[in-house]
Amino acid sequence: MFDFAITSKKITNTYARTGMFSTPHGNFETPIFMPVGTKGTVKTFTPEELVSLGAEIILGNTYHLYLRPGPEFLAERGGLHRWIHWDKPILTDSGGFQVFSLKKIRSITEDGVEFQSIHDGSKHFFTPEKVMEVQADIGADIIMAFDECAPGRVDMAYAKEAMDRTHRWLERCIAAQKRPKDQALFPIIQGVTYDDLRIESCKFVTQHDLPGIAIGGLAVGEAKDTTYRVLDTLAPYLPEHKPHYLMGVGSPEDLWESVHRGVDMFDCVLPTRVGRHGGVFTQTGRIDVKRNAYRTSDKPIDETCSCYTCKNYSLSYLRHLITENEILGARLCSFHNMHFLFEQIRHIRASIQDGTFLTQKEAFTRKYKYMGS
Amino acid sequence: MFDFAITSKKITNTYARTGMFSTPHGNFETPIFMPVGTKGTVKTFTPEELVSLGAEIILGNTYHLYLRPGPEFLAERGGLHRWIHWDKPILTDSGGFQVFSLKKIRSITEDGVEFQSIHDGSKHFFTPEKVMEVQADIGADIIMAFDECAPGRVDMAYAKEAMDRTHRWLERCIAAQKRPKDQALFPIIQGVTYDDLRIESCKFVTQHDLPGIAIGGLAVGEAKDTTYRVLDTLAPYLPEHKPHYLMGVGSPEDLWESVHRGVDMFDCVLPTRVGRHGGVFTQTGRIDVKRNAYRTSDKPIDETCSCYTCKNYSLSYLRHLITENEILGARLCSFHNMHFLFEQIRHIRASIQDGTFLTQKEAFTRKYKYMGS
Repeated sequence: MFDFAITSKKITNTYARTGMFSTPHGNFETPIFMPVGTKGTVKTFTPEELVSLGAEIILGNTYHLYLRPGPEFLAERGGLHRWIHWDKPILTDSGGFQVFSLKKIRSITEDGVEFQSIHDGSKHFFTPEKVMEVQADIGADIIMAFDECAPGRVDMAYAKEAMDRTHRWLERCIAAQKRPKDQALFPIIQGVTYDDLRIESCKFVTQHDLPGIAIGGLAVGEAKDTTYRVLDTLAPYLPEHKPHYLMGVGSPEDLWESVHRGVDMFDCVLPTRVGRHGGVFTQTGRIDVKRNAYRTSDKPIDETCSCYTCKNYSLSYLRHLITENEILGARLCSFHNMHFLFEQIRHIRASIQDGTFLTQKEAFTRKYKYMGS
Repeated sequence: MFDFAITSKKITNTYARTGMFSTPHGNFETPIFMPVGTKGTVKTFTPEELVSLGAEIILGNTYHLYLRPGPEFLAERGGLHRWIHWDKPILTDSGGFQVFSLKKIRSITEDGVEFQSIHDGSKHFFTPEKVMEVQADIGADIIMAFDECAPGRVDMAYAKEAMDRTHRWLERCIAAQKRPKDQALFPIIQGVTYDDLRIESCKFVTQHDLPGIAIGGLAVGEAKDTTYRVLDTLAPYLPEHKPHYLMGVGSPEDLWESVHRGVDMFDCVLPTRVGRHGGVFTQTGRIDVKRNAYRTSDKPIDETCSCYTCKNYSLSYLRHLITENEILGARLCSFHNMHFLFEQIRHIRASIQDGTFLTQKEAFTRKYKYMGS
């Protein structure tokens, strides 16, 4: 169980590789994009639609599922997979990112973190042990260690303090893990944007022989150059025979740039979050279907795209649906975006397999204009 | 074109019958339920999903489509069918119901009705001629005459005034119809809840040899007994060899009761409007998935139901999705409701074909408890 096999030959001048990871709910290929099912549903999609697009694993948010419907509830239902009608692998994050980013007053101690529910202000306490218990109840195939995700602009002293605490918490997570046979625990590298800390964190977490390794606290607002520099710094230190998961990342350009730097796994709410409001990916960059320029456009989002949305609907219709707040608009734009990302993933995998990854990456980057997230 | 053929043998003690109506976009069987695509989309559904459930014709609202995206826009796009990716028949209402019910200040004259846009308060003027033009641009297969839909509680004098005006407007609609060869114009019987007026209106509109006949101004708040009494009154006067369309009606119990009284066509927003908020049909009546009683229910909405929602999801999951405002919740509940109504339609058709309609109706009514709309 939790075997990771690299399935591509080495390519010069890049860390890109393809692989296969096995879990109790089946295998998945890497590089992989994991759609985010925040509260037990990938917004707008049925599971069957996700599978039809190429999804092999989805993510659930421990923070949200802990608050509603709650871990005991999920355990009683036989776990998240069954409840949400998804029989392929699931990964849950540790809740750390939400606890530290949702800005509800909290206190951080060596023991853990106190936070308030976004729903009713009730107080809750997450410790490494608690988070292991909650994730055991949810029942994902891959679970994450509890980490302190420090903001992008803290000084090095605080960044180190948070990182050291994350390391101590990792050891408590390993000791407290409930279901090591059917849940793979991934540690998380922290260290904000300080290269030395990142290297130190990578070295620390790889002392433990866990089935994979995650990079947290990146793509949280810092410049893209900084993200890529930290990934460049980390790449030589990441253990080659384990999958590398870059948390929260998933714009088209970041997929290519991060795979180049050795990343195998991605998750991001981007395709559904921007899609719901009419932001859609094209070969040349992201556009907003609400623009007045599309009011009478009979063209699809992207004439080269083969997705259901592009085969059947015009920009003018999508614009109408989104401006009228019609659910079908959110569905069609999210569907296109998800298709677009899985097309990138297929494209990336194929180019690694045939050794053309770097030229394909350059071709993508030349055409695709980054327009902010 | 627009041929209506009755396909069932007469059954004693009921006006129920099956039929087949032909349009430029294909035939449909009756009795039929027409999902409502208010603004060019049946809320939450793709066209393919509707067809998979049994939809053969959908409805569009002239009032909404006139305001946005506008008739000229739709004519330039090649009509509504193409724009919304629906190649089966479409029916558009006349806009009368919205003009008279959306409570924006208006003046009614012999010429027509002035009303304000719900969007920006801009003033617009609908005349019979204008409404014929707008519906020609939209391009539906069945279009409705412009009527004055008087409120359910007006006195008989006003009811007659509105009815007479509706009759005069019908003659102007017939004279002004733009595309009689590929658009079937249906007149509308008015007369509020006054039996004498209803009979008079029916006699008036049937003087004109139009391809179908509609009953308007019912199920607008009056007691169900009153609705059924008016239908009882009308039944013997409705021309047998034309389809009878009861506008705006579509609860499960009303389908059975109205088919019994000779109605062939229905439209209603009920399955999507209540479904979006967690109201779902079962064999024993409508329930609300948000109820606390379903918090831990592992059962489907209806254990005898074969729809996608009931085969794969529990009440507890649907409750979670609806309370969390997740789009998938709106989709799954709407899907179940639409399936339920089409199951009723199939059930009704089969029972007419095999002559058991009245006993089947009684069996349905015995189990199904009406819980208000």
